[in-house]
Amino acid sequence: MAAPVNPPRGMRDFLPADKARRERALATIKRIYAQHGFDEIETPVVEEFARLHSGLGGDNEKLAYSILKRGLSSDDLRTSADADDTTSLTDLGLRFDLTVPLARYYASHRAELPTVFRALQTGPVWRAERPQKGRYRQFVQCDIDIIGEAGPLAEIELVAATVAALDALGIVGATVRINDRRILTRLLASWGVADHFGERALITIDKLDKVGVDGVVAELADLGIDTAGVGEALTEIGAGGWSLLEGDVPAWLDTEAYEDLLALRAALPDVELVFDPTLVRGMGYYTGTIFEVAHPESGSSVAGGGRYDGMIGRFLGQDVPAVGFSIGFERILDLVRDPDDARPGSLVLVYDPALAAGRLAELKRGALALDAYSRVRLERRPRNLKGLLDSLAAEGWTTFATVGPDTEELEPRPLS
Amino acid sequence: MAAPVNPPRGMRDFLPADKARRERALATIKRIYAQHGFDEIETPVVEEFARLHSGLGGDNEKLAYSILKRGLSSDDLRTSADADDTTSLTDLGLRFDLTVPLARYYASHRAELPTVFRALQTGPVWRAERPQKGRYRQFVQCDIDIIGEAGPLAEIELVAATVAALDALGIVGATVRINDRRILTRLLASWGVADHFGERALITIDKLDKVGVDGVVAELADLGIDTAGVGEALTEIGAGGWSLLEGDVPAWLDTEAYEDLLALRAALPDVELVFDPTLVRGMGYYTGTIFEVAHPESGSSVAGGGRYDGMIGRFLGQDVPAVGFSIGFERILDLVRDPDDARPGSLVLVYDPALAAGRLAELKRGALALDAYSRVRLERRPRNLKGLLDSLAAEGWTTFATVGPDTEELEPRPLS
Repeated sequence: MAAPVNPPRGMRDFLPADKARRERALATIKRIYAQHGFDEIETPVVEEFARLHSGLGGDNEKLAYSILKRGLSSDDLRTSADADDTTSLTDLGLRFDLTVPLARYYASHRAELPTVFRALQTGPVWRAERPQKGRYRQFVQCDIDIIGEAGPLAEIELVAATVAALDALGIVGATVRINDRRILTRLLASWGVADHFGERALITIDKLDKVGVDGVVAELADLGIDTAGVGEALTEIGAGGWSLLEGDVPAWLDTEAYEDLLALRAALPDVELVFDPTLVRGMGYYTGTIFEVAHPESGSSVAGGGRYDGMIGRFLGQDVPAVGFSIGFERILDLVRDPDDARPGSLVLVYDPALAAGRLAELKRGALALDAYSRVRLERRPRNLKGLLDSLAAEGWTTFATVGPDTEELEPRPLS
Repeated sequence: MAAPVNPPRGMRDFLPADKARRERALATIKRIYAQHGFDEIETPVVEEFARLHSGLGGDNEKLAYSILKRGLSSDDLRTSADADDTTSLTDLGLRFDLTVPLARYYASHRAELPTVFRALQTGPVWRAERPQKGRYRQFVQCDIDIIGEAGPLAEIELVAATVAALDALGIVGATVRINDRRILTRLLASWGVADHFGERALITIDKLDKVGVDGVVAELADLGIDTAGVGEALTEIGAGGWSLLEGDVPAWLDTEAYEDLLALRAALPDVELVFDPTLVRGMGYYTGTIFEVAHPESGSSVAGGGRYDGMIGRFLGQDVPAVGFSIGFERILDLVRDPDDARPGSLVLVYDPALAAGRLAELKRGALALDAYSRVRLERRPRNLKGLLDSLAAEGWTTFATVGPDTEELEPRPLS
């Protein structure tokens, strides 16, 4: 009987305690982002198929769920079978991220939005991936984006707001790794990597922390790239940092981009900012700064983002600078230090089954009117009263009162 | 350029002011429901196709969006074309309500939930309806349900909580129309309607407020039902109320069910409860009490629900009593009296473009640290300062300060 009532594979139900924890964390993130001047927006979770498959979503496009057109005929199915292509059977799909919908939204509503638009978006996205530990087919993202600001001020505001949000969640010890796509471009050029190998080479460098220097060199060699000196460079780069302009400036370094990063660092004195010239981030649409938040208790990054100045132009027909930062909500939940799971001043009325429903309603109404309790719940008195009280205390309820036919006034008692 | 960047037909983007209004209303509803002892849960928006098409969703099942299976072959498509049936092409779908997912959830997690489970669920649902004014293909529902309580206490708690939520939203003048399926059954029997006409006849009666007494009589006659006296009865019923037991008890009245409603009324002295023996509510799964909230400013009901004691058994294999109340979130938004759109203590730093990004970041950090402002936003000083200040005031911002290279201390000024 268990299997048929489970949620679909890779998707989750949330029990009350889990849901409460998620809602508290989300409310904290949204409160801090609002404080920092971000405006919350919403787009439908469904987008047109053509929007989702415009090439901006990278590999995620392949993972998009597609929605079957309504009213398809046998002929439609046969045509699709003959062409061995299902795209004519679908017109809509579920979003796989919040960035593509934001770009579409901005293009649609630009005239109604501020010149520099600071957007906050949270919500579920879907990817038809093979489910595995910590990887789900429906999961929540929390994105902030600044559209219309070309300068480093946007990056500064994004990083400051995200670090403040993590702080407010009690997540300490996070570091922000930072790089710039221009630095990567120059690095590849310094190794003599041909332009058409650029993307493949970046994907390889992205694996550095997984496969090590030797692994990256081997993969680059497989691409036919001359790897003489690359291993050495990667080791030297790993030892890089914020003092690269102080001695001999490395030949591979784009100094202009590096100086921008130094300025960013100076503007964020409270943030643990680490320069990592091998940081790539997967998405092909990034054009400038890229960043990622690492935490010692998490195996993968807990947040990430970057500048994508070209994307909105794809929808709008006119380039608009944009940069975004996304918190991996599911990943940070394990790190949240939630100091107080208790519901302050909550009351359970444990009632004698002999009490009439009308009298119970009256007692509950009276308890709610006291304004002393944030929550009031009725519980029928079971044979094992102690068992009930223990489980209520474990759930975070603070107070109870037993009520019966003779009760005239509530006598609340602490639950633990 | 406009068309290709719009959201899908019948679905909506929300601008910041709209989104803020929606979030405030939702937060109010959730706060009141939590106060009344309801526990928030979440289920995936995607459910298995078989779950969505088990007959429990009534007409809504036909409106469900289906998700295309991944990895379909030409042969799969051809088989489906030959059978003229697309069901083999889909395995998942988008939920069309929150009740079917709740029943599945309860069946899956019963052992981990309280004996009497008070569930709160809010979220989007999807229906592939023809879009029209006020009717969308993605819209939000707010449901509370009580599972495991057979007696009228559940109905009392649901109605009290929903009326309190509407109160908190500033929605006054709502009335709760109430009936019981048993009363309808007896009514039809008193007219001699054969059982197999029952559902069709109910659908007809449901149209009373649209087509009038004569319209209902004509439709019932079309079904072959003997309508002698029906028109008279409908008129008499319309004049019914809470005093039907005081004189001659009408022959059509199920007095037991009516007495239960009288008890409900006595337990809810602050609620405007109207007995309407012709209230039907569309869903076939209702088994007892049904209710609907009407408001003078709304053409259709703004909330509704009822008892559906049989549904959970379909998933669990064992009947569990259940009753639910759903607020039509999109419908009540127009009625919400939101007394204060202003963001209390919000500050805009209007900056001279000559200011360095690092200094701006410092000024923003300083303003946030004051803790006097719930929100701080940076705005580049435009040529038309007055235009900017006016539009910020219209957006609800309360304070601004101009900052330039010489600024040492902020001098906030009111915005309006």
